[in-house]
Amino acid sequence: MQLADRMSVIRGSVIRDVATEIASRNNPNLIKLSGGLPDEQFFPMKELQAAAEKIFADPLLFGEALQYGLTKGDTELIELIIERLNRNEKLGINFDNIIICTGCQQGISMACTALLNDGETILIEKPSYLDGLNAALPYNPNIVGVETDDQGIRIDKLEEALNAHPDTKLVYVIPNFQNPTGKAWPLERRKAFLELLKKYPEVKVLEDNPYGEIRFRGEHVPCLKALDDTGQVIYLGSFSKILCPGLRIAYIVSDSKELIDRIEEIKEGLDLQSNQFSQVHIREYMKMFDLDEHVRDLCKVYKGRCDALIEMMKNEFPVGVTFTIPDGGLFLYVTCPENFDTGKMLKDALDAEVSYIPGASFNADGSGKNTMRLNFSANDVPDLQEGIRRLAGVFKAEIAKQDK
Amino acid sequence: MQLADRMSVIRGSVIRDVATEIASRNNPNLIKLSGGLPDEQFFPMKELQAAAEKIFADPLLFGEALQYGLTKGDTELIELIIERLNRNEKLGINFDNIIICTGCQQGISMACTALLNDGETILIEKPSYLDGLNAALPYNPNIVGVETDDQGIRIDKLEEALNAHPDTKLVYVIPNFQNPTGKAWPLERRKAFLELLKKYPEVKVLEDNPYGEIRFRGEHVPCLKALDDTGQVIYLGSFSKILCPGLRIAYIVSDSKELIDRIEEIKEGLDLQSNQFSQVHIREYMKMFDLDEHVRDLCKVYKGRCDALIEMMKNEFPVGVTFTIPDGGLFLYVTCPENFDTGKMLKDALDAEVSYIPGASFNADGSGKNTMRLNFSANDVPDLQEGIRRLAGVFKAEIAKQDK
Repeated sequence: MQLADRMSVIRGSVIRDVATEIASRNNPNLIKLSGGLPDEQFFPMKELQAAAEKIFADPLLFGEALQYGLTKGDTELIELIIERLNRNEKLGINFDNIIICTGCQQGISMACTALLNDGETILIEKPSYLDGLNAALPYNPNIVGVETDDQGIRIDKLEEALNAHPDTKLVYVIPNFQNPTGKAWPLERRKAFLELLKKYPEVKVLEDNPYGEIRFRGEHVPCLKALDDTGQVIYLGSFSKILCPGLRIAYIVSDSKELIDRIEEIKEGLDLQSNQFSQVHIREYMKMFDLDEHVRDLCKVYKGRCDALIEMMKNEFPVGVTFTIPDGGLFLYVTCPENFDTGKMLKDALDAEVSYIPGASFNADGSGKNTMRLNFSANDVPDLQEGIRRLAGVFKAEIAKQDK
Repeated sequence: MQLADRMSVIRGSVIRDVATEIASRNNPNLIKLSGGLPDEQFFPMKELQAAAEKIFADPLLFGEALQYGLTKGDTELIELIIERLNRNEKLGINFDNIIICTGCQQGISMACTALLNDGETILIEKPSYLDGLNAALPYNPNIVGVETDDQGIRIDKLEEALNAHPDTKLVYVIPNFQNPTGKAWPLERRKAFLELLKKYPEVKVLEDNPYGEIRFRGEHVPCLKALDDTGQVIYLGSFSKILCPGLRIAYIVSDSKELIDRIEEIKEGLDLQSNQFSQVHIREYMKMFDLDEHVRDLCKVYKGRCDALIEMMKNEFPVGVTFTIPDGGLFLYVTCPENFDTGKMLKDALDAEVSYIPGASFNADGSGKNTMRLNFSANDVPDLQEGIRRLAGVFKAEIAKQDK
């Protein structure tokens, strides 16, 4: 079939490809440290059921939930999200500044349609959730990775990149418990980032914050949007990690009413509107229950899992393997000796019944071949411990092979 | 804010703009003949509730419905849709030929991304659901209307257009109970259409069929996809009009596995996947209940409403006003005397507490100023009758004004 020229650069998600490969093994004993899933055990099922029952009990409400709604999203749900964002994140936004979307992924997609000309540059942390930028591929972007350190994106390297690529339109960042490293930028780095960006007013920041609320250690740090006084930051938030991903409800925030209104037009063309039932469902859930309390409970569980994983890695991993120690989120990042190739090693790991995501898929230049992402949210502590035991065995075998 | 160049051609839905204007009147006495809504009274609420209760009763099932799923869509739901399409529409498709999407709107969007180069031509019936092609606006398409007659698209005019626009990549058509006219193409026209298209193998047909099952008069006519032996037809179907639109579940069908696989990659970038809960919800509904029986009941209701509307128009409308008589769907199309401007007249209609969609919004060249779309699915018979009474008053006042 004769496809459009742009299809030559459109590709599938590397992470989903790995997931497909893993699934094809169909091995129930496999311990998946590769996933990015919240644990469904901790979805608030009873509460979501109660909210649904409320909808079912009222034909007017049920009819509303099954009918077409507004492209911008359910008005009352938007008001609840605004109230929560202004309270927890101090965003100071109003109804003009927000639109509902289908996962943060659609937020990235629509922001790229609205802002990025064909072939222009997007800067992204190295490593980062590169797959998210697949949303931009229809516009054939020049995706350039910017070095990071323990504090997040390096400001000197970012300035170099902005100067080297004067056609940069977007900087895509995940300052909170980043996918894949789990790192959070400290306040000073955030301020320095925004200070630098002020010199490039035509550049917009896409702040993807699905993990920010899953903080289980340390003090809350304001998100970029809360510190932004130029309106350059476009903020993406989601219910996927704090409630559940299957409902696909997220939101885009911008100071610019114009941008939000134009994104609404884009969304009309894309899918008319996000799922109406799920919007009403989450709205009624939020009115009946305390989402913040649920998030606090979730953080306790994920802290226990993260700590167990770290403890086990300290005990089991051979010398020369290092890892990040996150204060929140779902992921951490492992760096193996330089001569490791985690892409090739994945086969050995799958044979040993443990999986991870090879690090090269998070780097725009394909580097990071000796790194990998591990997830600690989707398995219980005994499985995490056994998973690390297996992975340590793979590492030791690899070292022995290379020592030969 | 500095937007991407493509935003100069992206615009909102004209129909949704009219809906917004109507909503701003906030008049509970307004009879809306403008909507495109199915009547929520006839959503199978009890059955959808029972399907949801089954999900709630099983934590594994509930967990699956709230979790991430596959980009292509829920496997079992897809199998149910395939079985239904092969039984009712004789499509003869398998798992390689279909992917779930968020409403037919997302299907149009993804097909355009996959097939249409920037600036290339899309042919569309005149009139048709032009707003649907807003999905193509990021690619700055040349949208060209092709004349229709009582039997659908005119083959001679289509051939002229294909020859005049050798860069045509897509022909977007709604052969069943079209939006806005309610017309269905007879079998011979369908065959002639496909015969002509064979001469242009690089041109693909986007057959949008959300209304096809709502036939309440006459014999079933095979859809284009069932008659297609070249693989040129890409078929869009949806649960929006036969079940409910709020769940936003639809599907794209193509003979080309390559196209479906590439659309899956596009969808990963767009929104990762459609709503998982709604996919599981519809799947369980389809396993527990007979969707075909529900559609048959729905057709009876809509037939009664359509007939009442037609009867009333015959009695009330002044000489010189004509209208289509549909055998199915949700809409019919009214043609007023040539000197009428239904866009300007809408204000008078709203003052008289009745609404419609002006016809110019269905014509790529802005013609059809003396036409309008009326909906018969969303109001009961007494309201439909009163709506026509009011509209006839507006017509008579307009004629009197012009006779002066």
